[in-house]
Amino acid sequence: MAKNTDLDDFRVPFFDGGKKLKPFDLSSVDPSAKPFSTGTKDGDRARLAEIGAQLDDLQERLHAQRHQRVLLVLQGMDTSGKDGTVRAVFHDVDPLGLRIVPFRAPSEREAAHDFLWRVHAQAPMAGEFAIFNRSHYEDVLVPRVLKQIDADECERRYRHIRDFEALMADTGTTIVKCFLHISKDEQRERLQARIDDPTKHWKFDVSDLEARKLWDHYQHAYAVALGATSTDYAPWYVIPGNSKTHRNVMVAELLLRTMQGMKLEFPPAKESLKGIKVE
Amino acid sequence: MAKNTDLDDFRVPFFDGGKKLKPFDLSSVDPSAKPFSTGTKDGDRARLAEIGAQLDDLQERLHAQRHQRVLLVLQGMDTSGKDGTVRAVFHDVDPLGLRIVPFRAPSEREAAHDFLWRVHAQAPMAGEFAIFNRSHYEDVLVPRVLKQIDADECERRYRHIRDFEALMADTGTTIVKCFLHISKDEQRERLQARIDDPTKHWKFDVSDLEARKLWDHYQHAYAVALGATSTDYAPWYVIPGNSKTHRNVMVAELLLRTMQGMKLEFPPAKESLKGIKVE
Repeated sequence: MAKNTDLDDFRVPFFDGGKKLKPFDLSSVDPSAKPFSTGTKDGDRARLAEIGAQLDDLQERLHAQRHQRVLLVLQGMDTSGKDGTVRAVFHDVDPLGLRIVPFRAPSEREAAHDFLWRVHAQAPMAGEFAIFNRSHYEDVLVPRVLKQIDADECERRYRHIRDFEALMADTGTTIVKCFLHISKDEQRERLQARIDDPTKHWKFDVSDLEARKLWDHYQHAYAVALGATSTDYAPWYVIPGNSKTHRNVMVAELLLRTMQGMKLEFPPAKESLKGIKVE
Repeated sequence: MAKNTDLDDFRVPFFDGGKKLKPFDLSSVDPSAKPFSTGTKDGDRARLAEIGAQLDDLQERLHAQRHQRVLLVLQGMDTSGKDGTVRAVFHDVDPLGLRIVPFRAPSEREAAHDFLWRVHAQAPMAGEFAIFNRSHYEDVLVPRVLKQIDADECERRYRHIRDFEALMADTGTTIVKCFLHISKDEQRERLQARIDDPTKHWKFDVSDLEARKLWDHYQHAYAVALGATSTDYAPWYVIPGNSKTHRNVMVAELLLRTMQGMKLEFPPAKESLKGIKVE
């Protein structure tokens, strides 16, 4: 295992608070890199199982405390592996302490509110680990690429997002955000695989190909998003994702380090229970 | 494996629609029985893994269809294994298609509505498998045992529950309800184990011992509940639960049979995708 690899190398530089947005240079991260791989797929799977057991223990402490909260935000292009990451990384974590929140296009009622209304409603509660599968970022990225909002509105929305995430962080939520980074070639292969397997057609809409045509626009919109919202209280990490096993291990390592830093202990034993014999 | 064992033997007799509630005779089911066990713990675990893979496939079809819905209701005395059942039975099922809903004592806002208001809000949507960890039944059982409601009100509530479950069933939800059946001795051992392990104290409240003192009252209240609401569209099954591995296998077998009966197929291939090459 690449023990000396530093997760911080994949953290997007902190947003400096200036007014001008500086897009992050996504081309500086190779989507095929495997810095957290053990070197073999079997080794990666073993490492993932090892981390999974540790995450399960940490999550039980989080749940037992009912005090702190964790929010993982997963973003990435179509087929970047958001669903697969959730499934693999949390395979050994007790589902009772997790809440997975998929965000799709807003409903009419949701769209009739400000864009953070539906997101706030899904924020994790004390003791909970919430996973946003897509998130509030979609409500800036998509309209920006489709030119429904201009650069000024985009800046305003990212400011609102920073403020919203600051509120959550200040009130006890640890936030980690992952951009699953795949190459355009890798996406072609994955989309083609879905087309070639009729039992996967339900995952596919012809409009996905329209989004692919806008690949460069989306990559730029992501670069702006990452640069504008990678704060010290809610950092973005770019996860090289062409290799699925690497992606899973790296996200797991990141969550492990994050939760280890939360000083999660079981609540103190209850004196009132001492010596009680159940009849 | 006890291939000839019939799940129907553990189904509470259908509610006949009469006005008089007939409590189910819980003493007719031995909580230590293991009718669905393979005979060994290892064999049970292997069978569970086998069913887990099948449930995962069925759940993917359910999710792909986005048409039918499934609701599993889990009830039982403290320590009967509701949490453990969820964890074990769904270990290999994709968490993206599951939603686990824990019901606790109603909040002030929830209590200001009718008792089914908060439950309806959590009903599964198309393509979803929802698990109620405790449920609307608590809102009849607990107040009845604590004598906050009388027998007439209890009957009224069960009638409302039958009507509510009929609404869900008529509109595409397959409902299965499990009563995890443990003995009073088994509960003593499990409660004592929690008391003896300080890292488990957070799961324990001294008031749990008060509920244990009312064991017979709760057993009777459950007997009334099962008899009054085991309809053909939302049947109750009594799951012998003193053995955890048996309990898990039996719930898994029940869900497997239920979902196999739903004729879950992947949606038809999309003609529009035929022959498309991704560029």
